Amino acid sequence: MSRNEFSEGDLRNTGMSLKHDREWDYELERIVEAVDERDAKKVGLQFPEGLKRRGPKVTDDLRELLPEDVTVMMSGQPCYGACDLDTYLMRRTDVFVHFGHSPMKESEKIIYVPLFSNVEVLPIIEESLEEIEGDQVGLVTTAQHMNRFEEMREFLESRGYEVHTRKGDDRLTHEGQVLGCNYASADIDADNVLYVGGGKFHPLGLAMEHPEKNVVIADPVNNVVTVADTEKFMKQRYGAVHRAMDAEKWGVIFCTKIGQGRWDQAEEIVEENENAYLITMDEVTPDRLRNFDMDAFVNTGCPRITTDDGPQFHKPMLTPGEYEIAVGNKPLDALEFDTFHGTW
Amino acid sequence: MSRNEFSEGDLRNTGMSLKHDREWDYELERIVEAVDERDAKKVGLQFPEGLKRRGPKVTDDLRELLPEDVTVMMSGQPCYGACDLDTYLMRRTDVFVHFGHSPMKESEKIIYVPLFSNVEVLPIIEESLEEIEGDQVGLVTTAQHMNRFEEMREFLESRGYEVHTRKGDDRLTHEGQVLGCNYASADIDADNVLYVGGGKFHPLGLAMEHPEKNVVIADPVNNVVTVADTEKFMKQRYGAVHRAMDAEKWGVIFCTKIGQGRWDQAEEIVEENENAYLITMDEVTPDRLRNFDMDAFVNTGCPRITTDDGPQFHKPMLTPGEYEIAVGNKPLDALEFDTFHGTW
Repeated sequence: MSRNEFSEGDLRNTGMSLKHDREWDYELERIVEAVDERDAKKVGLQFPEGLKRRGPKVTDDLRELLPEDVTVMMSGQPCYGACDLDTYLMRRTDVFVHFGHSPMKESEKIIYVPLFSNVEVLPIIEESLEEIEGDQVGLVTTAQHMNRFEEMREFLESRGYEVHTRKGDDRLTHEGQVLGCNYASADIDADNVLYVGGGKFHPLGLAMEHPEKNVVIADPVNNVVTVADTEKFMKQRYGAVHRAMDAEKWGVIFCTKIGQGRWDQAEEIVEENENAYLITMDEVTPDRLRNFDMDAFVNTGCPRITTDDGPQFHKPMLTPGEYEIAVGNKPLDALEFDTFHGTW
Repeated sequence: MSRNEFSEGDLRNTGMSLKHDREWDYELERIVEAVDERDAKKVGLQFPEGLKRRGPKVTDDLRELLPEDVTVMMSGQPCYGACDLDTYLMRRTDVFVHFGHSPMKESEKIIYVPLFSNVEVLPIIEESLEEIEGDQVGLVTTAQHMNRFEEMREFLESRGYEVHTRKGDDRLTHEGQVLGCNYASADIDADNVLYVGGGKFHPLGLAMEHPEKNVVIADPVNNVVTVADTEKFMKQRYGAVHRAMDAEKWGVIFCTKIGQGRWDQAEEIVEENENAYLITMDEVTPDRLRNFDMDAFVNTGCPRITTDDGPQFHKPMLTPGEYEIAVGNKPLDALEFDTFHGTW
């Protein structure tokens, strides 16, 4: 399958879709300064999928600002998150810039340029208030709306809500930030969580991770309010688990991306199941797995690949938790969303 | 596009297609010995696409032969040649085995297991003699038939031919061996070249590289004899060059695979053309390039991706030589097959 076929996991269904052909602040001065300081000769740029088409223009602008002998290059590797650093390019350039995500881990090697959205968030938050029950509300958002987090909080407070926020864990840079694989910022003492951001990508995980909460989605990009419903998603996951129950041969995927490795988990499965085989790879795609003669797969890498792209794989693809259910180590009702904690 | 869609570049159109579900010699003793010698705890196995489905069985056999505390893992990265080492897995395992290709460069880190075909070659060579003009013939084959090279030579000599062979250059392990990107072994003093091997994959490049020779293909896998005809291929290449002539923005691909990097070539293009942009990546696929807003691409990596998969890219994809024609640095009739020399 291709990320271009507009699956549910496609970034174009999310806040990354750039409906408005807006200008971003690429913070070129910061890059130029770093080149100057380090007397850099090679500059590497990495953009997430939805922003790759801006790469040539950013390169042009940088070339104009930088000395002639500096070579600027762009990463052509797929990039879906801060976990997804092009370490090859990073190691071979003097200045390496990762656009569009907040740092999963600060590093002197990497300049993170967040690229905040300029979409107004208050009108859709106003609309979302109808769905919030009571006056206690947790507030979370994604990296690209982080610059308006205080604005959101103040607005809610001005409407009489007590706003609960927290910084999830080490994997997250900001208070109130969620990732597709980490919703620890929503572990707050309130029955409602207001998620401000595009698409269904994040709030589904959020609702799965917090089934007891009323998860309200205020999507400022598509300008709609919805309440998260995990039913369809749960059905799909139970379907995958059931189909995998008869599997004899299991492919256990260890993802080699810097922010997605869970070696202990992968090794443990293989040690305990003699019909399990370790497969290492960076991009986990249906094409790459089709040639392996397996009955089912467990993906210890990005849970969004497993859940969003799952139906496109030729064999059932489970999260490590789902695997435990499929092989009978855990009961069916133990099914929960797979999340990532920590960095690397 | 997917390698599974059976394009002309698909390995299943070549000698790798494994029509006969034959047994291979995986040389497990050599692997076990290396594990023992190095007191290895981690063993990595890399198979080409057509053999990945054999991976679990080979893993089973190895597990039975190795101490319990040794972890065996398979590379899930795409692999189409000896240029295509999974360096991530190689660096993280004590013993790393690359199956199905002969060494592009010997290394203590890598155990190469060639996996020779057991298909009979003489019957189809006998048939191919009709197409050979005169009594001088060059002889070339691919890695998987290399074990029968002397048998082929003796057969031809017994039929009265003078057989010309040579070892191409550093990129090749064996006398008479050709790669998809290197036909230097056919630089011999004879008007005929007999290519023994599967598919159209290699002989097309061979015929392009040696347009003055009569290239006869004896395909022992599909049991057919043909004479290489480059006309359709040339038309496709000229088509791509013509479509790229109006391009303003060029994406210049530098392939990060260990055996496919041609940095000087990539850098030179970008230095001389201000509308050219460097893109670094390992797998060069239509999906990955679709997000870049370019009018045409030059691929300094594997020429087979450019020529065999070319039509599946959304914009014209040229070899470096074809690029020179498209931008007017060279005349149209300078078009030739892109080959790789040297190792890494």
